[in-house]
Amino acid sequence: MLNDSDVRQALAQVIDPELGKDIVTLGMVREVSIAEHAVQITIALTTMQCPLKQQIVDDVRAHVSALDGTLDAQVALTEMTPEERARLAGGQKEKQEGMAAHLNQIRHVLAIMSGKGGVGKSLVTSLLAVELRRRDLRVGILDADITGPSIPKMFGLTERPQGTPLGIAPVLSKTGIKVMSINLLLPHEDEAVIWRGPLIGGAIKQFWGDVFWATLDYLLVDLPPGTADAPLTVMQSLPLNGILLVTSPQDLASMVVRKAAHMATQLEVPILGIIENMSYAVCPHCGQRYEVFGKSHILDMAMLLGVPLLTQIPLDPSINALTDDGRIEDYQLDGFTKAVDEIVRRVPEKATTPRF
Amino acid sequence: MLNDSDVRQALAQVIDPELGKDIVTLGMVREVSIAEHAVQITIALTTMQCPLKQQIVDDVRAHVSALDGTLDAQVALTEMTPEERARLAGGQKEKQEGMAAHLNQIRHVLAIMSGKGGVGKSLVTSLLAVELRRRDLRVGILDADITGPSIPKMFGLTERPQGTPLGIAPVLSKTGIKVMSINLLLPHEDEAVIWRGPLIGGAIKQFWGDVFWATLDYLLVDLPPGTADAPLTVMQSLPLNGILLVTSPQDLASMVVRKAAHMATQLEVPILGIIENMSYAVCPHCGQRYEVFGKSHILDMAMLLGVPLLTQIPLDPSINALTDDGRIEDYQLDGFTKAVDEIVRRVPEKATTPRF
Repeated sequence: MLNDSDVRQALAQVIDPELGKDIVTLGMVREVSIAEHAVQITIALTTMQCPLKQQIVDDVRAHVSALDGTLDAQVALTEMTPEERARLAGGQKEKQEGMAAHLNQIRHVLAIMSGKGGVGKSLVTSLLAVELRRRDLRVGILDADITGPSIPKMFGLTERPQGTPLGIAPVLSKTGIKVMSINLLLPHEDEAVIWRGPLIGGAIKQFWGDVFWATLDYLLVDLPPGTADAPLTVMQSLPLNGILLVTSPQDLASMVVRKAAHMATQLEVPILGIIENMSYAVCPHCGQRYEVFGKSHILDMAMLLGVPLLTQIPLDPSINALTDDGRIEDYQLDGFTKAVDEIVRRVPEKATTPRF
Repeated sequence: MLNDSDVRQALAQVIDPELGKDIVTLGMVREVSIAEHAVQITIALTTMQCPLKQQIVDDVRAHVSALDGTLDAQVALTEMTPEERARLAGGQKEKQEGMAAHLNQIRHVLAIMSGKGGVGKSLVTSLLAVELRRRDLRVGILDADITGPSIPKMFGLTERPQGTPLGIAPVLSKTGIKVMSINLLLPHEDEAVIWRGPLIGGAIKQFWGDVFWATLDYLLVDLPPGTADAPLTVMQSLPLNGILLVTSPQDLASMVVRKAAHMATQLEVPILGIIENMSYAVCPHCGQRYEVFGKSHILDMAMLLGVPLLTQIPLDPSINALTDDGRIEDYQLDGFTKAVDEIVRRVPEKATTPRF
């Protein structure tokens, strides 16, 4: 006859779909009792609101039944105690970094940076997220622009993130991109966040450590302009796989972007490439293409910085119409998929080591 | 015969052109000795490098001669001791706020703000400075965008500001606009200023307190994007007469600009008006005008905020060519002079009271 340990071995093959680990390792198997032709199993979920609980139950039954087809598995569900959850999240560490950080499995973290404002960081972040999501990857956006957040507006998100026992749940976009932004937490989107640097750094760390991102293939971090608190916190406290630089054809923008590049180099974060936005416009009256911001020097700059030019994005009034409407996920940009191929190819597997 | 006190009374009418006060009040008259048909006067200048010293000497001689045409005034120049300069700067206060702050006579301080980056704050700041200067006013620009400073590039300035006994001397543009920017102090313009908020606030306070602006009719403060440290320091620590908001037709920009407006309201700084940049473009091929960033909602926004729309600036490649070349002073923008009339008319005489 089967014993407790046989059953537990079978259960060790049941993976919690959100946490990405097996339920035995996660300490979710609270009780196993074997009677004749029946096994009673009590599973403690991290939260009873777990949307995938039926899947876990089915999986448990399937694995027990694989062990012995004559056995009937009776699965009872309960909820973990706060202590159990804390243990799951890595015990003592919880207080420092937020429980969620220990449950999240984020494979790649990319920061989108420019130094200069208004060159299209949020647009590039959004287009990249949309394209990665179209490839069926699990994607999140951490909007690190605390005083000028644009991401929720681009995706048409207004829902308030909910607290769960595992952390703050990010808001899901139409196509399933997970988004966290300070604007989702404000009573009104016009409200100003008049915070000095330390609070801004704190908010970003919380978006990393207290948000339950679960498993992501890519987390994209949309940085604010400048080389001050927010980019510094992101570069020092998050494990980054790389940075994407965004610029526009203005000479002024290039200078400030070069400052951003120098910051990345000083902090030893690899730059994966550069994207030029607003490179040219197409006149809606005569259909001719022209350089609104003057001649581009992007190739010189890419060469100077020793990074590849990934793509050039035109100034297209229809992008603005879609972003203003929160419908960035409906946009299709020629040539951007090739840029994403290149980014995916260039992302190093190893991330930087956070310093604190 | 004349006595010492008569001569001192005459000298009390000689105004130091840079400090805007008379040389007796300033403690610059060190010695007056009267002999027959000759007066010997020793004037202690704040610095021997004073470019206007000949003017002071001529003025002294003219006023003494007005007193008695037969008298020959012999003027000797010397330099103040550090103690005299400290006394001139207001004694003890020097250590806290910088000596220059007590010598400067700045009639109006306007901050140019947008919340969002890349909408054209620096352009508006520069155009406003150029137009005020064309009206023969004394104008300075304090570039408060420490991590993304654009002003020196627009004016083609690369000279390093010099230290003088009275404080750091701002750099003069071709037409005589005084400029102070962190970029003038960096060994190389590409260098990144990787500072957290407190250092940024400190730099801005130094640009106010340690820079010898002398007498200015207008000091324009070019703010960085966001509502964090830099704008907060400017609004709390500088006596502001008002704020000009800059935006672009994107809906996204409007949202962030509304945040900036709310910040100004919360900190009780009056908003003098709003300027829309990149409102439209004119196709160089067919000459037709079109809205590059989609339809503008600037009138609705101005109404919502209860502030006047001062002007709309087109997206003009020739502006970019000039700013990239450091020749913004050569640009003539139709309609901008009327906006400046309106700004000058609206500036309140009373400034906010700095809190610390």
